[in-house]
Parts: sequence; C-alpha cells; structure tokens
Amino acid sequence: MKLSLLFSLVAFAVSALGSKPTPPALTLLFSATVNKGSALIIESSSTGLKAVQAITDGSFSGPKMKGTVTTGIATSVKGPNGLKVEATFVLQTSDGANILITERAAIPYVEAIFETGAEAYDWLNNVTAWATPRSLSNIDYLDYWQC
Amino acid sequence: MKLSLLFSLVAFAVSALGSKPTPPALTLLFSATVNKGSALIIESSSTGLKAVQAITDGSFSGPKMKGTVTTGIATSVKGPNGLKVEATFVLQTSDGANILITERAAIPYVEAIFETGAEAYDWLNNVTAWATPRSLSNIDYLDYWQC
Amino acid sequence: MKLSLLFSLVAFAVSALGSKPTPPALTLLFSATVNKGSALIIESSSTGLKAVQAITDGSFSGPKMKGTVTTGIATSVKGPNGLKVEATFVLQTSDGANILITERAAIPYVEAIFETGAEAYDWLNNVTAWATPRSLSNIDYLDYWQC
Amino acid sequence: MKLSLLFSLVAFAVSALGSKPTPPALTLLFSATVNKGSALIIESSSTGLKAVQAITDGSFSGPKMKGTVTTGIATSVKGPNGLKVEATFVLQTSDGANILITERAAIPYVEAIFETGAEAYDWLNNVTAWATPRSLSNIDYLDYWQC
Repeated sequence: MKLSLLFSLVAFAVSALGSKPTPPALTLLFSATVNKGSALIIESSSTGLKAVQAITDGSFSGPKMKGTVTTGIATSVKGPNGLKVEATFVLQTSDGANILITERAAIPYVEAIFETGAEAYDWLNNVTAWATPRSLSNIDYLDYWQC
Repeated sequence: MKLSLLFSLVAFAVSALGSKPTPPALTLLFSATVNKGSALIIESSSTGLKAVQAITDGSFSGPKMKGTVTTGIATSVKGPNGLKVEATFVLQTSDGANILITERAAIPYVEAIFETGAEAYDWLNNVTAWATPRSLSNIDYLDYWQC
Repeated sequence: MKLSLLFSLVAFAVSALGSKPTPPALTLLFSATVNKGSALIIESSSTGLKAVQAITDGSFSGPKMKGTVTTGIATSVKGPNGLKVEATFVLQTSDGANILITERAAIPYVEAIFETGAEAYDWLNNVTAWATPRSLSNIDYLDYWQC
Repeated sequence: MKLSLLFSLVAFAVSALGSKPTPPALTLLFSATVNKGSALIIESSSTGLKAVQAITDGSFSGPKMKGTVTTGIATSVKGPNGLKVEATFVLQTSDGANILITERAAIPYVEAIFETGAEAYDWLNNVTAWATPRSLSNIDYLDYWQC
C-alpha cells in the first residue's frame, strides 16, 4: 500500500522491452564559473593524494536560471583507480532561491543532482546533470547538461 | 609539486573560453537487469518514505562488457523534494573482474560511477554513466550510457 | 524564524564554558552477531585494498531491544591511512519494527547511528552508538554502547 | 591470501565470547570552538528543514594536539526522524599537519573519524571520537572524547 505511494510517484512510460536503446537528448542547463580556495593536502604519498578545497564563490547563467555560486567544499582523492572528486555547494539564483548541488566526479567527468524547496525550481529536484570542466584549477569553468 | 602530480593526471584539452557549448555524444555502455528483494520500509508517513532493498542478482550485456549483477543495496528516500535513490552493487564480468558501481538517482534518472582494479576495465574508472529505468519495480531494466 | 524551529528541537543544557569536561557514561544498547558473505575484492594492490561484502543475517539482543539482522552491505577500504569500513544494514525487532543502522569504522572502532519511523523506537533516532568487534571475520560479534 | 592481508592489519585480541561486556574508557582528545557562517536554507516546510553552513574557522586544544579549525561545511536535515547533521572540516595543527575530520550527528550527539597523512598524527587514523556540543549555534563548543 505504502509502496504504491512510492511507485505512483514515478510517472514515466514503460518502454517496450527488447527495443533498441536510443541515446537521450541533452540540453544546456547552465554554464558556471566556480572559484575554489587553495588545496589543503590531507595525504600525499607515492600511492595517492587526498585534498580538500573550499568552494568560495562564482556565478552561473543559463536558459532557465542564473545567479551566484556560494558556500561549498570539494574533496578529491587520487588513488589507484583514477581521480575521484566529491563536491557540495549552494547556488543562489537571481530571484532568491537556494539550490543545493551535490557532485561526484570521475575526472574529467562530473555528475550532479539538485535539491531545493523553492517552488520555481522544483523541476530541478527530478533532474540529473552532467558536466566536464574546460580546465581544472582553482577556477573551474563547466557547462552543465541536463540528461 | 604534488599538485602537479594531481593535475598531470587529468589529460584533456582546455577549450577556448567563450565558445558555444556543444552537447557530449553518448554511447551505449551496457543494458542491465537488476533484481531486488522486497522493500524494507524504514519510515513511512504522510510526509515521506524511506526504504531499503537488497540487490540480489541480475545480468548485464553491452558492446565492451557483459556478466552478472551481484551483491548490493539500494536506499530510496521520497521526501518533499522528489524521490532520491542511492545504490551500490558489484558487477562480475564474464572474464572474472569485479566492478563496483555506485549510483545516485533523482528518479527517473540515474547517475553512475565505477571502480575496479582489473586492468582490462581500468578505462571504466574514468567514465561516468547515465541511465533511466524502463520500469521501476523489484526488477529494473536499465540502459547505461557513457557520457 | 525558521532556524528557531531548528534549534528549539535541540533540548540540552548549555554547560558553563570553561568547566572541566567530564566523560560521558556509556550504557549497553545490545550485543549483535552479524553474518557476512564472502569478500568481493574490487581492488587489491601493494598500496591498498577495497572490498565489498553482503550482510546477510544475524541477531541482536539487549536490555531494550532484540531481533534479527537482515539486508545490508559493508564496504572496506584499506589505504595508507588505516582500514576504514562503511556498513548499512537493517535490524528487525522482535515486535516488528525496521531500524536502519549506518556505520562508519576506523578499525577496530565502529560508530553507528539509527533511523526508524517506528514509534516504540523513536528514541533511537537521537542516539549514537559505539562498538568494537570482538573479532573481524565473516561473522562479527559486537557490543553496541550508547554514548 | 589477499584477505589475510586485510585481516592481518587488524591487530586486536579476540575476547572470550559470552563474557560480560564492559564499557570502554573514554579519554579527552581535545576541546574545540567551531565557527560557522549563517545557515543557507535549502528547504523549509512543515515537514522538514535542510540547511547548509560553511565552517569558517575556530580552534582546538587538548592533551596531545592543538591548532586551528579551517575550511569546512555542515549539512543539517531535520526530518521526521530527528535532526541529523553531517560535517566535514580540516584541523591544522600548530606543528603544520592537516587533519580531515568527518562527522555525523544524531543531535545532540556527534561521531567523528579522522584522516591524515602526517606521521606525527598517524594514530588518529585508527581512532573514533564522540562529542556533544555545549550549545548549538553559529559557534559550537565541543569536547571530543576518544572511544
């Protein structure tokens, strides 16, 4: 009964099984500049590197939303299996909404999800985004694509 | 010095800033059937639902890899901001490699990253994937696209 | 305003600053036997080891609660900074409640928090627990202390 | 073989099963003042509140270590099951080491683990700590106990 509640939430068509998969269309969500503080090295050895960086500020702008980047943090781990990064920061839109963005990256690729209680941006709660930085440094430039 | 180590890892071209963003091309990684146990309801109220499901078994098959789905778990949270799911499970390839897949979903969309020490699949460590289930139930059918 | 809502939730006395700290008293919450499946090695090299184990079943018993251990997973990472483990599993009490337990461990020490919507165990939502396994193998024996 | 590597790492005595559990002794690790920025409200409704705060600075001092608190973030979720907080920040010791501290809290109780590559503080990698804030506000005062 309660599970029907769970599943009824999910409204999408069940495609015919066995059909040939077709790739999703991507649309630009926004482009962002994300400024970070200097890296605090937690661990650095011949076998790996772990570092933390504050996300201090920045800006973003796109077809449906624009505003500033604020408070956040990025944790990067370079281990035997590549460079993985986790980042959490807040987007403040020009019309006053706070949107939490949480990212996981297998560099050079970044996956993002969003969370907000602002009604005007409720659609973001059911969106995933994908980005790849145009450079990797204390300033990141990224285009976020809605998948 | 150690940071140069960090950054030299990341080999990708710095695009000219100001250029018009172009969407990434997606290629099919594999299609999967993921079987789950019945949902254990942790919390169910008028305001939300939290449930845990074992990921028991399944299979996957695609252009570059195939095998079985094994041990895992999925945790879903239906709150005021949509239905979010986190899942962790292990893919066992037909040639004997274990690949950890960790997923975050803003239903109906799923983001995945991979981790493995198997040399033949090392390329997966630097890949992100995107999927959307063809149905949501105790058996999930998903096409994973490499972004 | 909204924050007062946040803070009014938290009912505890503000101690006089500068007073000498006194250690908390610990009380036994329960003892548990946790059975795990064989380790799936994700990565094993001279520099680290990452493994995943299903948590299959078990039991727990203590002054205020008893029942069985069910569905879960444990992920262990042995890196340059020790052996860290994260585990998630469900406790099913003898009176029918599901309790989610999530653990982080810096071996040999384990920290746990709980989450449940069952009224009879609502007190667990505001409790932290600490354990240290009496052995480390596919069967773990742990005493969970409420701090 | 590889697992023996995993288990040999873990050096502790196997207590006689069936013996009466005795509570662990706690020793003071350090006392800390943690300053936070104002709360960014991500979601606030009748059913819950989610907020993010930057951890900006602070200090800590104890028997074996002292220094400053630097870059970090705290995310709090007040849901139907109490108030849960996750925090990540960096301790910089007076002798130049960076120590990552990650915390999970079921308010008013806080659990912490540590990670550092600094040889002088390697012992912290195998330690868990427990704290309870003397007050909850933009300035937190906590005594961290080593369990």
